[in-house]
Amino acid sequence: MPKNKIGRDIPEYIEGIGELRPYNGPFSFQPTKRKYGRDLSQVKPGDIKLLDSIEKAVIKTELKDGMTISFHHHFREGDYILNMVLDTIAKLGIKNLTLASSSLNAVHEPLIEHIKNGVVTKIITSGVRGPLAEAISNGILETPIIIRSHGGRARAIEAGDSQIDVAFLGAPCCDEYGNANGYSGKSFCGSLGYAKVDAEYADKVVLITDNLVQYPNVPASILQTDVDCVVKIESIGDPNGIVSGATRFTKDPRELLIAKYAAASIEASGYFVPGFSIQCGTGGASLAVARFIRERMIEDNIKASFALGGITGQFVEMLNEGLISKLYDTQSFDLTAAKSIGENPDHCEISASFYANPHNKGCVVNKLDIVLLSALEIDTDFNVNVITGSDGVIRGASGGHCDTAAGSKLTMIVAPLIRGRIPTIVDKVNTVITPGETIDVVVTDRGIAVNPLRQDLIEKLTKAKLPLFTIEQLKGKAEKITGKPKAIEYTDKIVGIVEYRDGSIIDVIRQVR
Amino acid sequence: MPKNKIGRDIPEYIEGIGELRPYNGPFSFQPTKRKYGRDLSQVKPGDIKLLDSIEKAVIKTELKDGMTISFHHHFREGDYILNMVLDTIAKLGIKNLTLASSSLNAVHEPLIEHIKNGVVTKIITSGVRGPLAEAISNGILETPIIIRSHGGRARAIEAGDSQIDVAFLGAPCCDEYGNANGYSGKSFCGSLGYAKVDAEYADKVVLITDNLVQYPNVPASILQTDVDCVVKIESIGDPNGIVSGATRFTKDPRELLIAKYAAASIEASGYFVPGFSIQCGTGGASLAVARFIRERMIEDNIKASFALGGITGQFVEMLNEGLISKLYDTQSFDLTAAKSIGENPDHCEISASFYANPHNKGCVVNKLDIVLLSALEIDTDFNVNVITGSDGVIRGASGGHCDTAAGSKLTMIVAPLIRGRIPTIVDKVNTVITPGETIDVVVTDRGIAVNPLRQDLIEKLTKAKLPLFTIEQLKGKAEKITGKPKAIEYTDKIVGIVEYRDGSIIDVIRQVR
Repeated sequence: MPKNKIGRDIPEYIEGIGELRPYNGPFSFQPTKRKYGRDLSQVKPGDIKLLDSIEKAVIKTELKDGMTISFHHHFREGDYILNMVLDTIAKLGIKNLTLASSSLNAVHEPLIEHIKNGVVTKIITSGVRGPLAEAISNGILETPIIIRSHGGRARAIEAGDSQIDVAFLGAPCCDEYGNANGYSGKSFCGSLGYAKVDAEYADKVVLITDNLVQYPNVPASILQTDVDCVVKIESIGDPNGIVSGATRFTKDPRELLIAKYAAASIEASGYFVPGFSIQCGTGGASLAVARFIRERMIEDNIKASFALGGITGQFVEMLNEGLISKLYDTQSFDLTAAKSIGENPDHCEISASFYANPHNKGCVVNKLDIVLLSALEIDTDFNVNVITGSDGVIRGASGGHCDTAAGSKLTMIVAPLIRGRIPTIVDKVNTVITPGETIDVVVTDRGIAVNPLRQDLIEKLTKAKLPLFTIEQLKGKAEKITGKPKAIEYTDKIVGIVEYRDGSIIDVIRQVR
Repeated sequence: MPKNKIGRDIPEYIEGIGELRPYNGPFSFQPTKRKYGRDLSQVKPGDIKLLDSIEKAVIKTELKDGMTISFHHHFREGDYILNMVLDTIAKLGIKNLTLASSSLNAVHEPLIEHIKNGVVTKIITSGVRGPLAEAISNGILETPIIIRSHGGRARAIEAGDSQIDVAFLGAPCCDEYGNANGYSGKSFCGSLGYAKVDAEYADKVVLITDNLVQYPNVPASILQTDVDCVVKIESIGDPNGIVSGATRFTKDPRELLIAKYAAASIEASGYFVPGFSIQCGTGGASLAVARFIRERMIEDNIKASFALGGITGQFVEMLNEGLISKLYDTQSFDLTAAKSIGENPDHCEISASFYANPHNKGCVVNKLDIVLLSALEIDTDFNVNVITGSDGVIRGASGGHCDTAAGSKLTMIVAPLIRGRIPTIVDKVNTVITPGETIDVVVTDRGIAVNPLRQDLIEKLTKAKLPLFTIEQLKGKAEKITGKPKAIEYTDKIVGIVEYRDGSIIDVIRQVR
């Protein structure tokens, strides 16, 4: 089996997927195709889009065996849409579908039944968690799932690599002609950044809402000119699962130590200057870094031009304090962010393509100075795994990890050196999501490692007297405590392929034994 | 020569344009093509889009002989962009271009030289005025110009019927990565509704600005993901020509009489009910109708759901008074509107495709209850001419005339019965822009004619005791004063073809003798 640029075995061809192009560096692939263009329509004055059941919408879209359907995951663990639509499709006897969701969560466990009964035979997603992830890792599907980053998904859809026949999109606030936003109504989720791509490129677009408002719903995130039908139902999601409340700051001393090192590294890096831009995660350490950075911004009178993400209430507060000029939001992570996006014109909703698609005319991750990312594992080549656990089972999501790492000037991984008895830094990660050549700094509670590709940063962080080690030294420290981790046992069967953002294959996931 | 549905002679083929599809009714054509998709790109982190001259941009876009370039006309008579870009292109020796501007004005007279020297050999536009229009009517171009409505232009671009190689778009407020809006800066124009279509579909997109702001410019009408380069120059337009001041109300008794009849007809029509929607023109009579309607709205406590256009300060005031819920704005007609669109979230910028493209999933003219339109001529089949004057020379623009007429439930023409010694109602209009089957009511200062297709309206307006006549009777009244107008003398040479919004040909314009 041929190896890609980072030494992973990539099959040349997979039944049900086709030929695979191996990963060959973050910007090595120059696209030559044209953007996908869906069929032109003719909706006449007086035509009605409003329907009173999902079943009628499925029938109206002429969904057939073998087609591709899509969903967004802005409702997270509160999502009712995907399960309802699949139940309806199953009832109608439609089979052999490809499910191209922006991501999948534990709430989608009922999908297992629809895989067993042949309704869904292929899955494309950013990630998957819970019993469904276990089932996939145990080989329930004949064809491997495709893991795509948020930018990679937008790219694939725009390029027509992943043609969506029908998108079923939950809409927290919608009029009868298809103008929708995500920040009003009982099922509000904030940004509809993932759904925007599906709405623009799917051949048929169905909006499903529990909050039908008077025409015209202005301003709107999804436009009537992209929508075929609107379905009004009782409830599209469980508000408790959709947005979480305010994020509390960590008191974990280990996370605080990581955050202290990370903040100091950012300060020393040369990127912490007026007008800098930043993306942070939602982990305890990431949020603590943002808090430390905020303090230094006030002290040094440094203001950020924008924050990007995955927006949390913390960034909203910094926007309101005038510390950050603008927020670019593909996904609102909490209650504060989900509300702010509908109220503050400087808090700007963006599509996943604007966020991270490498093949438009310049996505916003290109303009990112600093990104803080998490990791389940990092290897001595700086490759990062955020998808499979220490048992080899899928338990995470690709998200914007490899996208922001490729775009950002300073890509920093924050992670504890060990978790329980499991080392975070290893010889070879189980699964590569983000290639090491796009990672600059790894910050742990036991020290910092800088990618040797960044001699400039090694110099700066050394000068700042930060506890620098080689990545091998960090690995040694971890193994001293945990011992060498036992290799995971896999079968030969490939259960997932991991696409890099440019459509090449960076790794595969095998069935756990 | 075969005739189209309304009896106009349409050639089957024109050299330089191709085969022509004759008009066959407003919704008879069902599109079968896919949306045009431009080439995918790869803009890497660190790539620079900012250039300091138009020449560098022309070179960077690799513009070549025979290509199509486009412009927007939001700067109206204040536009510097088109002339500057064409001068640069001429200097670089590039020839034989198709110019696909959203419209052309008197300020574009220098284009005559670029036609003479072979830089521009074809023109596609909504309209043209002044010396350039005279030159075209006198046969300066070998290939006829194509007149497209605003909706028709968006349709043609999205369908790839009119592939734009390079769009040169003036941007009143722009950052170095291509996020732009139209409502800030010294050259502000309000909505960038026409430009939005070019930005999304042109293969290469150049923004030209005189107001470069800090990244990121949020919110933006044109997005960085659609922009190849940004050029900073001294001045993109003459503010005096771009937006006019507040519109004054007419005191012309004839216009006031027309307005009185029109307002009464609207009231009697059954469409003047809570939640109605409306589009008005900017002529004296149209504005006066809006004023009368406003008074009745207050008296009867009737509120409009939205107004559409072509937005004037008058509608902005009604929005602020709470009489209208939302404004949809493709083009801000005056200072008040141009400012409001950047300040009021209920005043919503829309693209020309959202406005009127008949081949997306439902444009907003479909939701229009009432539209007031002007006319240079109306014939006894209710066909309307807004493009050629009584001397047969081009002097107007198609605009959204046929789009709104097709979409609206009540399409009302307001016009004086005679202008000087020229009748407005005639046997056959010089040039058909809007087919009579989409016109419902013609209101003049000497009486009202309702299209016999609308017996329901005849009944309602008769019941309201309005001065109803047949269209032939109105024509008779006019001719009694003016006499029969002398026929215009044309040569056989076709100088323009008039496309209906669906891409079919509704009429041709011939060279004046």
